[in-house]
Amino acid sequence: MVAVDWVGGSVRFIDQTRLPAEERFEQTADWRVVEEAIRALRIRGAPALGVAAAFALCLAAGDPRITSMNDLQLAFRTALEGLAASRPTAVNLFTALARMRRVAEHSFPSGVAAVRERLLREALAIRQEDVDACRTIGELGAQLLEARSTVLTHCNAGALATAGTGTALSVIVSAWTQGRIARVYVDETRPLFQGARLTTWELGRAGVPHTLITDSTAGSLFRRGAISAVIVGADRIAANGDTANKVGTYPLAVLALHHGVPFFIAAPTSTIDRETPTGDDIPIEERDPAEVTHAGGIRIAPEGVEVFAPAFDVTPQELIGAIVTEAGILRPPLASAIARLAFPADGERAEVR
Amino acid sequence: MVAVDWVGGSVRFIDQTRLPAEERFEQTADWRVVEEAIRALRIRGAPALGVAAAFALCLAAGDPRITSMNDLQLAFRTALEGLAASRPTAVNLFTALARMRRVAEHSFPSGVAAVRERLLREALAIRQEDVDACRTIGELGAQLLEARSTVLTHCNAGALATAGTGTALSVIVSAWTQGRIARVYVDETRPLFQGARLTTWELGRAGVPHTLITDSTAGSLFRRGAISAVIVGADRIAANGDTANKVGTYPLAVLALHHGVPFFIAAPTSTIDRETPTGDDIPIEERDPAEVTHAGGIRIAPEGVEVFAPAFDVTPQELIGAIVTEAGILRPPLASAIARLAFPADGERAEVR
Repeated sequence: MVAVDWVGGSVRFIDQTRLPAEERFEQTADWRVVEEAIRALRIRGAPALGVAAAFALCLAAGDPRITSMNDLQLAFRTALEGLAASRPTAVNLFTALARMRRVAEHSFPSGVAAVRERLLREALAIRQEDVDACRTIGELGAQLLEARSTVLTHCNAGALATAGTGTALSVIVSAWTQGRIARVYVDETRPLFQGARLTTWELGRAGVPHTLITDSTAGSLFRRGAISAVIVGADRIAANGDTANKVGTYPLAVLALHHGVPFFIAAPTSTIDRETPTGDDIPIEERDPAEVTHAGGIRIAPEGVEVFAPAFDVTPQELIGAIVTEAGILRPPLASAIARLAFPADGERAEVR
Repeated sequence: MVAVDWVGGSVRFIDQTRLPAEERFEQTADWRVVEEAIRALRIRGAPALGVAAAFALCLAAGDPRITSMNDLQLAFRTALEGLAASRPTAVNLFTALARMRRVAEHSFPSGVAAVRERLLREALAIRQEDVDACRTIGELGAQLLEARSTVLTHCNAGALATAGTGTALSVIVSAWTQGRIARVYVDETRPLFQGARLTTWELGRAGVPHTLITDSTAGSLFRRGAISAVIVGADRIAANGDTANKVGTYPLAVLALHHGVPFFIAAPTSTIDRETPTGDDIPIEERDPAEVTHAGGIRIAPEGVEVFAPAFDVTPQELIGAIVTEAGILRPPLASAIARLAFPADGERAEVR
């Protein structure tokens, strides 16, 4: 199962809003369909957003109605701006857009065909780097878990959230094959149930024993000593190590601290944003109140009720035991570990925001 | 609005599973309808369960088909056993059953009419004590809150959960009239959304400003310094002060500790069970997995997924800043404060379980 793919000049993706009831793949040559899919969370997960956005720019540049470099530049810029405005928190989106923009600008003098070819090459490289990162993250992260661990995860940081095997779920599946996992507890992840819908579906396919819980049931499991580690993905990691991830992650980190349980992040280096100094500087997307006032399409709360619906929260670096990246396991102090990393995207993402 | 009432020889209650969409009252002279309503959470909330169970025993004893004391004793015992098996955690249910049983046994020699009359008198006393307790809890508890507090609550501890004005919500509404409340944050309370459905409805009727959040959004609010106190109800308070309440309460207590925010319980003394030494001894009801795998009647999780669905969790006494009861505000060390209380139900509840 590949969440986002490039097939015959078009983007093919599985509509994650329909899972697990329906495994429906969509295929489109229209970048606006990809943008809508990102906004509607048909495509979701920080690394997958980067790959999807890169492919979407290839679609924009590849529009057969484009006949001149002026047309191409306009189409590319329009798509870049539309995609940059789609979702604000996951930095992988901006990392990918910045890389694609640099390639485009460097190749504009070479003509339409060359721009298209180099954009696609870059998008496929972004995809391949993510595939490789997922595999390495899985291998490295598995070493963090003792034999027969019971691991808690939140939201979905699996194959669906990446171009590869996932981040936190890559660690879990890799650890499972090594006998390091006895059971995975899966937070349902309100309001959109990515844990209940997507993570259970992925773990079921992988044959990893798992138990679904409501988000607030995690506390009971900690108190019973039933959790030996927490591992989740990330949407943006600030320069000091503070990490934005799906809302509900921070309470797990506090529970883990209270119970002396290690708390791990798994994310590719494309999720690290050294231009964002701390978690307080990460823009937190707020979602439509209807996602909270309704469940399964049914209104549960009274009409007109005020809602606070952030999509993400920030876990401060001091609660994070390790960040598993493809460049190695980052250990506290995370600010120094992040500063020592060498990677190329710095200084360019700010321009596409 | 009275959640559970005695009207013309029958029990009248609002069907809480239909709120807020529909304000439907049911009226019945059949104790089994009340028992089903308790099992199905049409009637819920620890104090309301006690009142409903007492009224249900009056219905059982009042069955017009009863012609002899033998009939009455059989009907009473059958209803007592059925009600005792309806829900295991809230101790108010057993407190009420034990009181009713004692009254019945003492009055059996006096004849059917006398038994019926004394049972009704006791049930009405249980109801009135709850009404009085709610009012006193509201008045006492309001003093715990500073001016313009922002208060977080979980589940529903309002009028719907009692025969009176509620426990935690009685404190909140009382504090609101004194200018001590700026805003109430309401946890939606998965899986059955008692916060989203019931607490918002009650606060809306009372005119108290409130904001609905998913349960795991509370962490974001603590981290922003937006919560000045947490106040919740209770389903059973052990002799040492450990408190069972709706699942998701314990994580709030840990977050409150981490952020230096006071955490309060509001409950009548009928919720205190000195026969249960600690929280580890409180039986925790597990609910139907379908409550987690479905939302709004729609299946969200894959078929066959394993679910862990406790209805309650236990907050250890050391995380509780105060327990507001009608007999006063209990302060740590809670075990001593509870030991000093004088109330009558001890030694009888065990017999009806």
